[in-house]
Amino acid sequence: MKAKPSARTIFAENLRKARLAKGLSQEDLAELANLHRTYVGSVERSERNVSIDNMERLASAVGAPLPKLLQKEKQ
Amino acid sequence: MKAKPSARTIFAENLRKARLAKGLSQEDLAELANLHRTYVGSVERSERNVSIDNMERLASAVGAPLPKLLQKEKQ
Repeated sequence: MKAKPSARTIFAENLRKARLAKGLSQEDLAELANLHRTYVGSVERSERNVSIDNMERLASAVGAPLPKLLQKEKQ
Repeated sequence: MKAKPSARTIFAENLRKARLAKGLSQEDLAELANLHRTYVGSVERSERNVSIDNMERLASAVGAPLPKLLQKEKQ
């Protein structure tokens, strides 16, 4: 059995998928969320202990509800 | 129409309800999550821009899935 992925990892993966589904680059997303492009990249690599306010901005920018971005996808 | 509550406010309210449903004090929760009691209090008052790692610890300590703690309750 694989270890349960962290909330960080789940958010990172779901954010990336939601961004790509919208046809947005990391730069586009950064601009929409008023964050720096390198910051968005580091969130998508699970490197950042992202705050709730920035999670909300990112979710809003990709048009996804925040709770959904924290849900582990069914395999 | 009321403004949409922030993710911070939703998390704060849901965390407080989940903690009380477990019969835990803020001090109990702080101990379980390995955080400071005053920090837990400030999260429950929406004063903190809480990070994803701490949200995960708090959710785990109250035994609730993190996505659920970010969902606005139905009236």
